[in-house]
Amino acid sequence: MKKALIIGGTGTIGTAVAKKLEKHYEVLIASRHSKEYPVDISSVDSIQSLFEKTGKIDAVIVTAGAAHFGPLKEMTVEDNLVSVTNKLLGQVNIVLLGTDFVKDKGSFTLVTGIMMDDPIYQGASAALANGGVRAFAKSAALELPRGIRINTVSPNVLKESWDKYQDFFVGFNPVSAEKVANAFVKSVRGLQTGESYEVY
Amino acid sequence: MKKALIIGGTGTIGTAVAKKLEKHYEVLIASRHSKEYPVDISSVDSIQSLFEKTGKIDAVIVTAGAAHFGPLKEMTVEDNLVSVTNKLLGQVNIVLLGTDFVKDKGSFTLVTGIMMDDPIYQGASAALANGGVRAFAKSAALELPRGIRINTVSPNVLKESWDKYQDFFVGFNPVSAEKVANAFVKSVRGLQTGESYEVY
Ligand SMILES: NC(=O)c1ccc[n+]([C@@H]2O[C@H](COP(=O)([O-])OP(=O)(O)OC[C@H]3O[C@@H](n4cnc5c(N)ncnc54)[C@H](OP(=O)(O)O)[C@@H]3O)[C@@H](O)[C@H]2O)c1
Ligand SMILES: NC(=O)c1ccc[n+]([C@@H]2O[C@H](COP(=O)([O-])OP(=O)(O)OC[C@H]3O[C@@H](n4cnc5c(N)ncnc54)[C@H](OP(=O)(O)O)[C@@H]3O)[C@@H](O)[C@H]2O)c1
Repeated sequence: MKKALIIGGTGTIGTAVAKKLEKHYEVLIASRHSKEYPVDISSVDSIQSLFEKTGKIDAVIVTAGAAHFGPLKEMTVEDNLVSVTNKLLGQVNIVLLGTDFVKDKGSFTLVTGIMMDDPIYQGASAALANGGVRAFAKSAALELPRGIRINTVSPNVLKESWDKYQDFFVGFNPVSAEKVANAFVKSVRGLQTGESYEVY
Repeated sequence: MKKALIIGGTGTIGTAVAKKLEKHYEVLIASRHSKEYPVDISSVDSIQSLFEKTGKIDAVIVTAGAAHFGPLKEMTVEDNLVSVTNKLLGQVNIVLLGTDFVKDKGSFTLVTGIMMDDPIYQGASAALANGGVRAFAKSAALELPRGIRINTVSPNVLKESWDKYQDFFVGFNPVSAEKVANAFVKSVRGLQTGESYEVY
């Protein structure tokens, strides 16, 4: 059976993706609190150790990545680095370090978010991370070796997260985790590469 | 007379922008090798010192920002940090630290590049920086105080840089520095905010 690694697979989106993939893949779930596959994506060494532990895999999916939320006028250089170190470079470094561990015709699927296209109050730093990941993936798709593909999924705010986030996403139409998970499945099991699947 | 600060104002694009603005603005040119306004945008302290030296200004324009070019398969985490520290965070930090020094109804204009939309070999790290800057600016536009605006300009490869870059931009149609400079002028002297002016 093919293997899919979901980094952040215990979260709201990751759980939904895992559920959909488990019919076709042996699913490995990694996160900071995982016993079997612990990883902190803000650390390069931790990413490297994770791949040494998993060995060769077919699909790498990321549904993790913290970002700083806060008003622009209070945002410090250090606040912004939270998004850069986690959501942006965490995901990019997974590609840079993980490519050798992905089998021929395998794939990477990264996560961004609607705030880069439809910005909201307090969202500038997260938007930066999202926009950086999308552009990186679109370009990296040209150069990944051995038929390896890469796509990104940009979810709208989730129905499952609406209670927590509704005050920030005024007038947005939340989407289900199930619909977002389908975009991940399309990326993993389809043939496209360099795409940004916008689940808006 | 209003004051415009051009960081990178001695470069190919910066020189063209300076020429167009100098009829309407007192133009201050900053760069690493400037005698009067030395700055290295990869250093937060250096950006802070620059603004303390310039005092209040009307328009901040950035036409600087190094990025790493190189094949994805050889790209290290450290290589990629060159783009992050310079073109991406250099520009974002200019906004975070510079806002207090920009006068009411002033503006920021940052630079990105076509490679985020129309990717090329060896361009993934630069694309990351461009995409991050564009998304940050679009979102920051919502929150800048006192009528301060922000836009980005995304140039195609320049005619003036064609000799140097033509092997990377196969099939592209280079644009003149003059045309690119007009997009900067539109950002500085117009009323729009949150825009990405794509000079393709
Ligand atoms: N929820 C939404 O409405 C929504 C909308 C658009 C985009 N997104 C984006 O989608 C991603 C996932 O969102 P979510 O709502 O599913 O998040 P979530 O429920 O908070 O889950 C996050 C997952 O990532 C793991 N994680 C967190 N930090 C990590 C780190 N440094 N290293 C490794 N794993 C880490 C968590 O497990 P541990 O705590 O064990 O590490 C968990 O498995 C985020 O980037 C978010 O911005 C979410
Ligand atoms: N040329 C093109 O075809 C093209 C196309 C699309 C996008 N762009 C982008 O536009 C920007 C400018 O390009 P260009 O061709 O005009 O570049 P350039 O001719 O090499 O000029 C760069 C300018 O930035 C300054 N600079 C470089 N590093 C700096 C730093 N760390 N801190 C402060 N100033 C710095 C340089 O002066 P010092 O050496 O004194 O610091 C110079 O004034 C770049 O971000 C480039 O990616 C260029």
